Amino acid sequence: MTATPPPALSLERMRLDAVLEGLARGDTAALARAISLVENQRDGFERVLSEIHKRIGKSGTQRIGITGPPGAGKSTLTEQLVRAYRERGRKVAVIAVDPTSPFTGGALLGDRIRMEAVSLDPGVFIRSMATRGAQGGLATTTEEVADVLDAFGFDRILIETVGVGQTELDIAATAETTVLVLVPESGDGIQTLKAGVMEVAELYVINKSDRPGADKLKQEVEVMLGIRRGNAFAHITPHHQPRAATGGKGRQRAETADVWEPPVLTTVASKGEGIPELVDALNRHHSFLETSGKLAERRKRRLATRTRAVVNRAIRQWVWDETQAEDLLAKRLDDVAAGTRTPYEVAAEVLDQVRNGE
Amino acid sequence: MTATPPPALSLERMRLDAVLEGLARGDTAALARAISLVENQRDGFERVLSEIHKRIGKSGTQRIGITGPPGAGKSTLTEQLVRAYRERGRKVAVIAVDPTSPFTGGALLGDRIRMEAVSLDPGVFIRSMATRGAQGGLATTTEEVADVLDAFGFDRILIETVGVGQTELDIAATAETTVLVLVPESGDGIQTLKAGVMEVAELYVINKSDRPGADKLKQEVEVMLGIRRGNAFAHITPHHQPRAATGGKGRQRAETADVWEPPVLTTVASKGEGIPELVDALNRHHSFLETSGKLAERRKRRLATRTRAVVNRAIRQWVWDETQAEDLLAKRLDDVAAGTRTPYEVAAEVLDQVRNGE
Repeated sequence: MTATPPPALSLERMRLDAVLEGLARGDTAALARAISLVENQRDGFERVLSEIHKRIGKSGTQRIGITGPPGAGKSTLTEQLVRAYRERGRKVAVIAVDPTSPFTGGALLGDRIRMEAVSLDPGVFIRSMATRGAQGGLATTTEEVADVLDAFGFDRILIETVGVGQTELDIAATAETTVLVLVPESGDGIQTLKAGVMEVAELYVINKSDRPGADKLKQEVEVMLGIRRGNAFAHITPHHQPRAATGGKGRQRAETADVWEPPVLTTVASKGEGIPELVDALNRHHSFLETSGKLAERRKRRLATRTRAVVNRAIRQWVWDETQAEDLLAKRLDDVAAGTRTPYEVAAEVLDQVRNGE
Repeated sequence: MTATPPPALSLERMRLDAVLEGLARGDTAALARAISLVENQRDGFERVLSEIHKRIGKSGTQRIGITGPPGAGKSTLTEQLVRAYRERGRKVAVIAVDPTSPFTGGALLGDRIRMEAVSLDPGVFIRSMATRGAQGGLATTTEEVADVLDAFGFDRILIETVGVGQTELDIAATAETTVLVLVPESGDGIQTLKAGVMEVAELYVINKSDRPGADKLKQEVEVMLGIRRGNAFAHITPHHQPRAATGGKGRQRAETADVWEPPVLTTVASKGEGIPELVDALNRHHSFLETSGKLAERRKRRLATRTRAVVNRAIRQWVWDETQAEDLLAKRLDDVAAGTRTPYEVAAEVLDQVRNGE
């Protein structure tokens, strides 16, 4: 993506070939190097992603997003899931993303250490990621790292994010199945469950369910899931929603080949309680996606979103690295600070320059 | 930003002139219309922002970001701050941003209703915002809406966001002073306070401080603030950090003209307890920024970040609205889904087309 090739290009290319060869051989060191390339968008990362593109999306592979407020025990739950999948003979990768650590660079370090117990197993691969200035593009980068792991042959790819903000939800939603982990202590119960958060998850886990308030929270979540569905119907056919099938508490499971009813599970991750049930529910969701045809549909939609994001990134890199935009911006910033020019005038000027191919 | 002017352009222009005139006159209806223009990036919004640019950043104006986990009582605290500022004769605007509500469109509706008590006062202006697809640009849009309110003459602009994710922090950080609101129940105490979140705030509030655990949380926050500062020093001069001034618990306030020591305050917002102290601390931080010269510095840095974001937005709008990029992307998506082309090949093709001015 640079205008004049740097002197080390041929060396770069040799290194890239070695990484690609290593990936094909199943070499874990090459995997780590490929992920670093992609994460830091170093020269040639698009080539790596293009090369592996045909090997992603095998039917046996499942990407699982795990999100929830800090302190909900997501790392412990993730570790338990890793163990459970290993016992079932699955190769498991974990991407732990902490978008709120732009300063430390050491995302989820504590969690990484805690997970060392499982990380000596060659069937397990764990990677932490922080933003490192990946402005607005962390969901895309996470998805690309997951692609590399997918092509490498991991059967389950767990994407763990901290927090329930927009960025975190976007990242978790790159997975096919998203799990929202809550604990009795998380905020004021019902208040933590805002519409956007509820919409994103296909599975709800009340972790630390041996603590007081777990039953109440489970009920609240179930009622809210009912309310949400009720509202959706009200929008289409007011006063005529099929209450018996979709109403609040006490409703029957209305799962069919086309409709997924998000289950609310309870776990005590630290003791391994509820993990087999969670694995079953995750498998059930994957089967549902496959048999309903929604998996192909979802992957197609994700690829469209991704392609658009990749185009935007390529255009941004071109504008700032290969045109005179950066120089012009630097020249104008003093005027902007002094109030003699506005950001909008500068943007129009930069755009004009870019359009005229300067 | 469109290639051929739409037929209604002159009408648009008349409407825009009316909005600008109304703004200059101090007409609240024009203010609401100007904000809608900016929020939805309708034709002419850059002109509105350019026109008001010279009137923003008056020394008496303070932008305050208020963030924290759901259920921390931010809305109640915001309402109390509005009342307190009104009692002191300040005009106050509130922007309530909920990035996790892309589906409902009705961001913080409940909170808005709760705040109706104060919203009949003409010295108060309250606005809710949701994402509405402002992909990655919500911080910029929020800052632009704050500009309109600033130019209109509000003395205090409160920017309330829900959650402590990256997007929410980015939005809160567009303010000059950021307040992080916590409650004894928020997660597992110390775990909620990740490095990125701690770095962003200049004031910490333990709300609902009449509940059990408030003292413990306050202590934890203070210790962590000490640890953070200790680490920062350790990085520069290992083993020689000035412990007496910057060490953990029991340290003396080391506030000077150049260093801001973030205070940890306690409130019971529902009863108005601790609000005068919070207002004092907010005023103190504003004075600190002004006298230390950091206010001008910070505003300059924000304007640089903003100008870059505005350029990126203008380029993106140009690429998708005025070039053939959208058509080419639509043509290629089936190939991408089928695996015969990769997103990276498509991006290279689109970029080539854009560079060649097609």
